[in-house]
Amino acid sequence: MQYNGAMDKIYEDSLRFHKEHHGKLEVASKVPLVTRNDLSLAYTPGVGQVSVEIGKDPSLAREYTLKRNTIAIVSDGSAILGLGNLGPEAAIPVMEGKAILFKKFGNVDAFPICLATQDVEEIIETVKRIAPVFGGINLEDISAPRCFEIEERLRKELSIPVMHDDQHGTAIVVLAALINALALKKEKKENVSILVNGAGAAGTAIARLLLKYGFGDVVVCDSKGAIHSDRPDLNPEKKALADITSRSERKGELAQVIAGTDIFIGVSKAHVLTEEMVRSMNPQPVILALANPVPEIMPDAAKAAGAFIIATGRSDFPNQVNNVLAFPGIFRGALDNGVRQFTDQMFIDAAERLASSVKDPSPEKILPNVFDEGVAAAVAQAMKE
Amino acid sequence: MQYNGAMDKIYEDSLRFHKEHHGKLEVASKVPLVTRNDLSLAYTPGVGQVSVEIGKDPSLAREYTLKRNTIAIVSDGSAILGLGNLGPEAAIPVMEGKAILFKKFGNVDAFPICLATQDVEEIIETVKRIAPVFGGINLEDISAPRCFEIEERLRKELSIPVMHDDQHGTAIVVLAALINALALKKEKKENVSILVNGAGAAGTAIARLLLKYGFGDVVVCDSKGAIHSDRPDLNPEKKALADITSRSERKGELAQVIAGTDIFIGVSKAHVLTEEMVRSMNPQPVILALANPVPEIMPDAAKAAGAFIIATGRSDFPNQVNNVLAFPGIFRGALDNGVRQFTDQMFIDAAERLASSVKDPSPEKILPNVFDEGVAAAVAQAMKE
Repeated sequence: MQYNGAMDKIYEDSLRFHKEHHGKLEVASKVPLVTRNDLSLAYTPGVGQVSVEIGKDPSLAREYTLKRNTIAIVSDGSAILGLGNLGPEAAIPVMEGKAILFKKFGNVDAFPICLATQDVEEIIETVKRIAPVFGGINLEDISAPRCFEIEERLRKELSIPVMHDDQHGTAIVVLAALINALALKKEKKENVSILVNGAGAAGTAIARLLLKYGFGDVVVCDSKGAIHSDRPDLNPEKKALADITSRSERKGELAQVIAGTDIFIGVSKAHVLTEEMVRSMNPQPVILALANPVPEIMPDAAKAAGAFIIATGRSDFPNQVNNVLAFPGIFRGALDNGVRQFTDQMFIDAAERLASSVKDPSPEKILPNVFDEGVAAAVAQAMKE
Repeated sequence: MQYNGAMDKIYEDSLRFHKEHHGKLEVASKVPLVTRNDLSLAYTPGVGQVSVEIGKDPSLAREYTLKRNTIAIVSDGSAILGLGNLGPEAAIPVMEGKAILFKKFGNVDAFPICLATQDVEEIIETVKRIAPVFGGINLEDISAPRCFEIEERLRKELSIPVMHDDQHGTAIVVLAALINALALKKEKKENVSILVNGAGAAGTAIARLLLKYGFGDVVVCDSKGAIHSDRPDLNPEKKALADITSRSERKGELAQVIAGTDIFIGVSKAHVLTEEMVRSMNPQPVILALANPVPEIMPDAAKAAGAFIIATGRSDFPNQVNNVLAFPGIFRGALDNGVRQFTDQMFIDAAERLASSVKDPSPEKILPNVFDEGVAAAVAQAMKE
């Protein structure tokens, strides 16, 4: 229970920390405001001319305003971390945390927007209505399958880049980890078999990006087992997933379908992967056990069962799979390059650059450290239309 | 044309200034983010517990998040400064300017929300949907009469304070100016006759607040002259205004109805007040000529025609009537005291405190200077439920 004790301490410290500061984010001026002349330039009467020019050509907002460097982090509080549907107020501290990571690692100004609605159409229309101020939209902690339609529609209907980070941020970092893992295993992507456990936002996006990248066989399991076209209980999103995954036509529960695979990617629940299951995989498997805060299998157990590489979502073990390796650079590059829409190719390029940013990959180091310099800048290079 | 030359210079400088900085506002962290432990407290896993607590009691967002000190400045770009309907992007630099004034003078974190809709119902529902993050809503540069319904409905339907600054910010500063002007004239509020020229957002709110305060006779003119119950061309808002104003039953155009009044308040257009009109007023009139950037009458002309006190919206003449004397303190006090709804009494109290903050009032000094210390703190004292 040592682990639970440590968590209790962190929880207690975090509550005190948040209460002491009343949150983590502030809005600040980038310019001096001391003299009457400062006022005349930054506000009236000078600002009137800026408004007139933007009124004539709204695209100038990117030159003259915060839109150039500012994104919204939008959540409806329906899938907060692994905690579930806690509502918009409960999402605020998470989005504030994300905003300070955006600033620290990508020098991106990000402001949290937590919505008092969980209706798909209302979320879409609200984001469209508040879009003028923002140069990009990071969707966050919105539950599946609603997140898929919301993102797809906003991508089509807005001319600023939109990304659901729970999907693509995770998928990019996972792909980067696998690129380095394959190199260490000296395997080709076409020849390996991957099992993704979890068919929510992250699992779906991971499977899709890995297939786009060229992995040969990807099977996705939900809580009922492998997703395949013969299952009668699939929603439209899982049906679409069944159509493109499972080349090997695996069927059955996790314990059955994992046998003979090379890579396990868990975006599911604590302790669902047993040592026995790992032993049933092909020799020297790669395990990405990303459930937080308790992974699908603890690293020591995975190693004992023969894992060649084990990665988790946690900072207290090697190989932390953390979205912060991706999202600051993604939006940094998108804002700098005036990207209007993200593409799969940009995400693949970002994953390759993220993988390359590890100087000497080893089984204990397939990803950069969160605090490594230059990671966001490397990822940003990929954001070019 | 010296004045136009000076304005051209300010306009040019302001465009360059805005382009150089890409706007004026940034989002910043209030907390350190250097070590893994910092990450654990500010983000995962620690933040999860904060979300759980707020999920159980959403009112805790005021304790644990930026909601405690953050407001939205909401505009639809329909009435930007005196420039008209230029759209949401053109509103951004003005709202950014306002945000840095909020920070500088009230230590309030204010974020601009510029809406891609000018539909009353859509504006109301959008503001309600984004409200969870904010501790207050400052409506700005929304055209009359739409602004009245939007503010009234949001006040009823939200449990955070909502204020349309073009209305009440202006009205508070005008009332403060008149309180000191009356003291200097040694007149009683019950006995003076006031003409408000302009029946938009500001004119309407000024008339209403002055009547609430106890001024005896207030007449409001729009572009067609005095507003009174016999006019067949009034919209519902002006009809309501006619019912409560014009005790003296004045009718006719400005040039007629101004004769015999004591105080002129212009929230209208450049040069509409002539010296002849000023001469037709009662002796030693008080003139607040607030049209920007060119007032209804220039100060030297008003003085030449016998004005006892002349105030304008401009910083290059004495007695600047500037909303920044009110709005930072209003929201500072509202946030500190957990105000859920603004009342007229708070606004009157704010005006009295603002008037008292002038140490030795004189005809050249009926209001504090924008940069005077302690003004916002004095106004904030009035915001108590």
